[in-house]
Amino acid sequence: MIFDHEEASYRRLFYYGSLVGEQIMDKVVFKPIGIIRSGFQDIEGMPIQPLGAQGVKGIVEVYPEYAKGLQDIEGYSHLILIFHFHLSKSSDLLVKPFLDDKLRGVFSTRAPKGPNPIGFSVVKLLAVKDNRLEIEDVDIVDKTPLLDIKPFVSDFDNRYDTRNGWLSDKQLEARIKKSDERFR
Amino acid sequence: MIFDHEEASYRRLFYYGSLVGEQIMDKVVFKPIGIIRSGFQDIEGMPIQPLGAQGVKGIVEVYPEYAKGLQDIEGYSHLILIFHFHLSKSSDLLVKPFLDDKLRGVFSTRAPKGPNPIGFSVVKLLAVKDNRLEIEDVDIVDKTPLLDIKPFVSDFDNRYDTRNGWLSDKQLEARIKKSDERFR
Repeated sequence: MIFDHEEASYRRLFYYGSLVGEQIMDKVVFKPIGIIRSGFQDIEGMPIQPLGAQGVKGIVEVYPEYAKGLQDIEGYSHLILIFHFHLSKSSDLLVKPFLDDKLRGVFSTRAPKGPNPIGFSVVKLLAVKDNRLEIEDVDIVDKTPLLDIKPFVSDFDNRYDTRNGWLSDKQLEARIKKSDERFR
Repeated sequence: MIFDHEEASYRRLFYYGSLVGEQIMDKVVFKPIGIIRSGFQDIEGMPIQPLGAQGVKGIVEVYPEYAKGLQDIEGYSHLILIFHFHLSKSSDLLVKPFLDDKLRGVFSTRAPKGPNPIGFSVVKLLAVKDNRLEIEDVDIVDKTPLLDIKPFVSDFDNRYDTRNGWLSDKQLEARIKKSDERFR
């Protein structure tokens, strides 16, 4: 089944995939709802997390047809941005992340190399001006296509007593480490 | 430009959209990488956040072709799941969320009614058995198509000194409130 939310329709093209006997979807189609602007023109030499991008400013430009959905957003200090890693040209199941020199399973990393290049950043919201959001702590390359905005809600989104896998002793490095060319 | 990561190709179908003079993409195509299993057969009567689903168990079944990407994931206590709200049949820019009786801009809510039906949950990881992840705190309907898994990393993902908008005095209600029929 292909769900195409842009056309608000889906074509019934059932097939039997890895779950034999069960109907599964083979594609999901999303559309950019805006664009993220930043001073980063290249994916090399960037902060690798918002933690390493403190004070770095950017703009979210929501396309005018979606601007009404921004109502009430000014009450939040932080937003979850979900976007397309549009410069990621390939995927790998094992990657050497920026913070390690071993091969790791891609789902145990934040590398932009998963089977679906979906990016996720929590940024600070500074101001709302019509369809433009001024944001801070931006670790996102200029002209990135935005797919969704959700408000960050502390009781929903913070987790305590976490175990942080191979990143346990490397989290602080993310404050200073910059990206290199490896995920082009 | 249509990026189709399934076919690892893109067709150059440039058009001038709301940003006149700039080439923008009009579609992003993702593919399910697995399926999320839970005891919730219906989107009515469900917990509305992992906060309201404490102790509720589920399974993430990653399709075998992506299982290698799960290496090292067992070191994490929590995972970020990004999925397709496949039962959301329409979108609205203003919605009455479960926790309020006023119309709110959809981007100021966690309602599954954005222009792109992308779901986001942070769940506990209990165990990894081959391509199956046993998870807890599951607020996701059975058979939801999974798009991505990222490790939850406390220093990357927690935020303090937040303002939580219209949800400020309603976060605790999310512990007990169940979904109703409104977002069918």
